[in-house]
Amino acid sequence: MHVVEFETTASDGTARAGTATTANGSYTTPLFMPVGTRGAIKYLSADDYDALGAQIVLGNTYHLMMRPGADTVAHFGGLAKFAGWSGLTLTDSGGFQVFSLEPDVDDEGVTFASTYDGTKHRFTPEKAVETQQLLGADIQMVLDVCPPLPSPPEVIRLALERTNAWAKRARDHHTRPDQALFGIVQGGVSEVMRAESAERTAALEFDGYGIGGLSVGETRDEMIPALAAAIEHLPTNRPRYLMGVGDPASIVEAVNLGVDQFDCVMQTRLGRHGTALTSEGRVNLKRQEFALSDEPIDVSCTCSVCARHSRGYIRHLFKVGEPTASRLVSLHNVAWTLRLLEQMRAAIIDGTFQDLRRDVLAVWG
Amino acid sequence: MHVVEFETTASDGTARAGTATTANGSYTTPLFMPVGTRGAIKYLSADDYDALGAQIVLGNTYHLMMRPGADTVAHFGGLAKFAGWSGLTLTDSGGFQVFSLEPDVDDEGVTFASTYDGTKHRFTPEKAVETQQLLGADIQMVLDVCPPLPSPPEVIRLALERTNAWAKRARDHHTRPDQALFGIVQGGVSEVMRAESAERTAALEFDGYGIGGLSVGETRDEMIPALAAAIEHLPTNRPRYLMGVGDPASIVEAVNLGVDQFDCVMQTRLGRHGTALTSEGRVNLKRQEFALSDEPIDVSCTCSVCARHSRGYIRHLFKVGEPTASRLVSLHNVAWTLRLLEQMRAAIIDGTFQDLRRDVLAVWG
Ligand SMILES: [Zn+2]
Ligand SMILES: [Zn+2]
Repeated sequence: MHVVEFETTASDGTARAGTATTANGSYTTPLFMPVGTRGAIKYLSADDYDALGAQIVLGNTYHLMMRPGADTVAHFGGLAKFAGWSGLTLTDSGGFQVFSLEPDVDDEGVTFASTYDGTKHRFTPEKAVETQQLLGADIQMVLDVCPPLPSPPEVIRLALERTNAWAKRARDHHTRPDQALFGIVQGGVSEVMRAESAERTAALEFDGYGIGGLSVGETRDEMIPALAAAIEHLPTNRPRYLMGVGDPASIVEAVNLGVDQFDCVMQTRLGRHGTALTSEGRVNLKRQEFALSDEPIDVSCTCSVCARHSRGYIRHLFKVGEPTASRLVSLHNVAWTLRLLEQMRAAIIDGTFQDLRRDVLAVWG
Repeated sequence: MHVVEFETTASDGTARAGTATTANGSYTTPLFMPVGTRGAIKYLSADDYDALGAQIVLGNTYHLMMRPGADTVAHFGGLAKFAGWSGLTLTDSGGFQVFSLEPDVDDEGVTFASTYDGTKHRFTPEKAVETQQLLGADIQMVLDVCPPLPSPPEVIRLALERTNAWAKRARDHHTRPDQALFGIVQGGVSEVMRAESAERTAALEFDGYGIGGLSVGETRDEMIPALAAAIEHLPTNRPRYLMGVGDPASIVEAVNLGVDQFDCVMQTRLGRHGTALTSEGRVNLKRQEFALSDEPIDVSCTCSVCARHSRGYIRHLFKVGEPTASRLVSLHNVAWTLRLLEQMRAAIIDGTFQDLRRDVLAVWG
């Protein structure tokens, strides 16, 4: 494991701005990490990641191990080099996808059928580590068990126990010295179980800590106390990563509690179907009312799309099925979210985070 | 009409390099013009046009008059502003699409059913001018009659006569002083009819001259003499535009005869389906043999895609259906073709055009 040092630059209440250092470079937080599921952010490529100022791009272990295969990615020098990118990368464990495939789970691991060709595969904490060592991202995640919410307490408890046992096995199996390994906290919306899971995961001494199994069906009011309970038991000198959460209100509330990094496919999924994130909320750009609009997607946005394109033009491209439309709104949504997190960082440093939080919640809460 | 002055910078035999000046700026020739049929080059946008160094981008009058409508494009300030681009634009007359819809043609014009909603439309030379004045490109084309090849001589003759009569009507109807109007030469593969059509079109004194109705089913050996016969009767101080032709062998042969500009959808159509234009010919990037290839699409290419992406990566993206794949190969194909034409220009200036021609024909002939 490569220890990811987290240094706090500034705090504002429990919110914190900092720098995390990996073997291949550091990143500033709080940070949004866009997702390139199959090795590319949809409609974008490495030139765009650079232009956007992305610091970390995610890859999806399940998809990449199926196509082109982890050994093929390793042949190209790992995920970043495969994608032609010189920035940092992170891979999830593959667990989230695998558990969505109705697999057979036991204490040792999980057996599932591939969505690509129906073949049966066995996945274990050790296999997840080995696969991710081949994928070679700067940060890899342990295989966890992520139950949907709501689930009965015994389901949450079993997921917590297996996640913890698997975390230890992953840690013991991980050998790549230039790659960080993050543990994952589970525990549903139970504050007690979240605290216990965090404590036991922290005791295993990971390079950083994912908080999984949230934003999977519960309300934000249920999520926040569970998240707070977990963070209380995580070390301050390691990054905290709230997995799969990307809506602005949840992000600002999580940053308020001390979360450092986020990933979400929402930005690109919404974008390619014509919905933009803006300073006034979600905007469906396909609406008739924008047919003659000279306005950019968001007048206050500094992205390259808003610099030169109108809502009217983008609406037209969607209406006639031009793929450029999906690209432009994906670019905007990622840029907009990256900038929102930069604004949060600046506000924490300035001591004005609560003002920003109030503004974000007024629109997105 | 705005007179497009063409100044010859250098000649090499009948091949010429020059500069053409429109009301909104000049362009250097020989030039490839990529096509943004519905207001965007597929998968690309104005930022890309700039990065590619494109000088003129085409729009398609038929598609744009149907969606979003020429008046809507005019509302946004014309095609270039609509697309957020500060470069030059050119619109075809719409005739090529309309004649592919099996329309009713008479001496006055053409009646056809929209592919968008089946509604009936009447299109005339005057309507084509008015529509294109609203679209507001720097160069517009007269409505011509473009028969498929082979066609019987009387069909070619009728197309020639109608094209000529319609050209005069277009010229008399055109009023926009900042917009150039190009006439179009027809005549099939008959050298006699091509010469006559060129002479009669030139007599109408257009700002430039399109050569239409070629590369529509005939061999290159049939095309070249017809093209040569047309060019012989066109003025030297106006640009010559071979419409819809984009394969490297035809381009180099046409430049050899004195053609100045070209457009083609082939570059992006091939690109988005995984076929690249390279210094060694067409390459289907989806082939299994490229699965582990570290090579760029074309080792001798200077484009942004070849600078950072491997054939193996791009193949993977195609195999899993990532839209980034189509974007990357479209970018390469357009960049590659733009550069090929720049190399032709440089070779004409250097007096080495015949060497380059031989090299291009050795691969593409
Ligand atoms: Zn924007
Ligand atoms: Zn290239």
